[in-house]
Amino acid sequence: MKDPIKSRQAVWYDKNTLFMIDQSLLPFEVKIIRTRDYRQTCLAIKSMLIRGAGTIGNVGAFALVQAFLDAPKKNLWTCADRARSEIKAARPTARSLSYAVDRVYEAAKKSKDPKKTALDEAQKIFNEDKEASKKIGRCSNRLIKKNFKILTHCNTGFLAMAGFGTALSIVYQAHKAKKNIFVYVDETRPRGQGALLTAFELSVAKIPHQIIPDHAAAYLMAKGKIDAVIVSADRIAANGDTANKIGTLEKAVVAREFGVPFYVAASLADFDFECKSGENIPIEKRDEEEVLYQSGQDKDGRIKRILTANPGSSALNYAFDVTPAKYISGFVCKRGIFKASDLGNLKIKNRQATSKKNLSLS
Amino acid sequence: MKDPIKSRQAVWYDKNTLFMIDQSLLPFEVKIIRTRDYRQTCLAIKSMLIRGAGTIGNVGAFALVQAFLDAPKKNLWTCADRARSEIKAARPTARSLSYAVDRVYEAAKKSKDPKKTALDEAQKIFNEDKEASKKIGRCSNRLIKKNFKILTHCNTGFLAMAGFGTALSIVYQAHKAKKNIFVYVDETRPRGQGALLTAFELSVAKIPHQIIPDHAAAYLMAKGKIDAVIVSADRIAANGDTANKIGTLEKAVVAREFGVPFYVAASLADFDFECKSGENIPIEKRDEEEVLYQSGQDKDGRIKRILTANPGSSALNYAFDVTPAKYISGFVCKRGIFKASDLGNLKIKNRQATSKKNLSLS
Repeated sequence: MKDPIKSRQAVWYDKNTLFMIDQSLLPFEVKIIRTRDYRQTCLAIKSMLIRGAGTIGNVGAFALVQAFLDAPKKNLWTCADRARSEIKAARPTARSLSYAVDRVYEAAKKSKDPKKTALDEAQKIFNEDKEASKKIGRCSNRLIKKNFKILTHCNTGFLAMAGFGTALSIVYQAHKAKKNIFVYVDETRPRGQGALLTAFELSVAKIPHQIIPDHAAAYLMAKGKIDAVIVSADRIAANGDTANKIGTLEKAVVAREFGVPFYVAASLADFDFECKSGENIPIEKRDEEEVLYQSGQDKDGRIKRILTANPGSSALNYAFDVTPAKYISGFVCKRGIFKASDLGNLKIKNRQATSKKNLSLS
Repeated sequence: MKDPIKSRQAVWYDKNTLFMIDQSLLPFEVKIIRTRDYRQTCLAIKSMLIRGAGTIGNVGAFALVQAFLDAPKKNLWTCADRARSEIKAARPTARSLSYAVDRVYEAAKKSKDPKKTALDEAQKIFNEDKEASKKIGRCSNRLIKKNFKILTHCNTGFLAMAGFGTALSIVYQAHKAKKNIFVYVDETRPRGQGALLTAFELSVAKIPHQIIPDHAAAYLMAKGKIDAVIVSADRIAANGDTANKIGTLEKAVVAREFGVPFYVAASLADFDFECKSGENIPIEKRDEEEVLYQSGQDKDGRIKRILTANPGSSALNYAFDVTPAKYISGFVCKRGIFKASDLGNLKIKNRQATSKKNLSLS
């Protein structure tokens, strides 16, 4: 087995088994989880042992593959139907999950060998993500100038999507091009994906960075210390309204106020052209304990969970918020950089590409 | 000794000893610290066993009293001078600290019995704060309507200032007037004064509230769930630019964007009319460990400190930021509610009141 950190691989599939880095233990421990049936895999999604829009999609796709493989032939479609809805319900906001699961399901449905086709399709989605990540990274040529200080929110690197991720792929590429960039990493409360995962990824890649409290960004912007904000997306509506990790909207509003460009880098799976606007995006509320308690490493190297709020007080925990399109300077995807007003063109390009592919496949 | 929580008393002075609730242990443990010399008291300020602009001022004033009382007669002013600068340097941003320390010093300087006068002046400042807190609270009649949902940042209640505090005094008063208010409490990273101290105060007072991650406010505002933001201040410049806990600027920008009024409630000591604008306010940078580590209660009820960030990554920890006056709907103080453009009038009123008092005293 290759070192999953060195090879930047958060998820892989081998002989009916799905292997995933347990992201809930990172950066303190690199532990690989193995799941052999779709319900276990669903649980890994739900309990956020894995996270990140792209990774959720990939894991969801392989979960459905597991469901297909385990299903008895006579009940194949009953089992597949049930698994499909269960998996899609594991995280409602991320478009990539329903996109990937539906793609695997529909490919299998059309096939004479649904089990084999399901696996092929899941692998295909995974490879497409990897390719998309590379193309997103290349857009850093246009977006990132020398000595840029970049603010990121949440984790959007190789842990979040096959390849080098979305927003962080742009950062990786700019660093590779020796642009002397510096990254401010939002902690990303309540789960700390910035302080834990993004800081970890940047450390591994030796990219200079500093962690900041989530609400410190405005002050840094006011002081002229941030040149660009790049985030990812969990779902982008047809009009460009974007659901992403809670706090994204606040970052976008202050970025516009201080004249800092704000980019959303995403896989095509995150664009939901059926969804008219942000109002139609389901926003996941998670357990208040995520806000009230925190996990980390004690001085003896053990992972501990402590209460960091007043005992008896409750907390409100929206996992995501919706950033209206007007705050977003551009959407970066494998087809290039688009303004919100151009997303109609992206939709058309997508349709053309898909139908061409279908023709060549048929 | 009265119960300091029930009697809402964070600090008191008795026979050369300063008693303070150790706010670094709240809400998990109510422990009273006693200091008998000014250096110990300075340490309590510096290490944030006590915090909150008003409380810092009061504790600083009593610290100087301790220095006076301990100083040998022949070296009185050498000792007092040294103590004065040491105490003022303990927390550079809070105006209340230098204000209170200078007032005690100057009163003593003019007196034939400096030791007694120092103590009298410190007690006077304390009582004035208590009175100011009451008057600030009364402004809630004009600011808070029935069923208001109020966002607060950091802790601004009885722990932060003699009496019921500043911003929270308005909340307490509105609750007392049965306005059916609800409070969203910003966690206030990195030290969690919201999640720990404000949530504790509101629980004690049985005021309905919920803790939110600091950057969730914009989303709640976008959903129309916040009717007013009230914060306190560590220093207000002559033009209304306001230094307050890091994150305040971000709250103010998003409040304006979503049409939510944003008030700064402060003691007169927080207004620094000698300071022209926010650019002249010194902003304290604190140890990065405050961001990287967190303390809280483990399941056995013990206070533990854990690392909640990637080992080896560094953090940037500005304790405060500066909110330009244009984002502030009004300044609430014991003399009423002022717009930034009216602060000149407040300055004049203050001068008149002070000179009247001096006349009546003379």
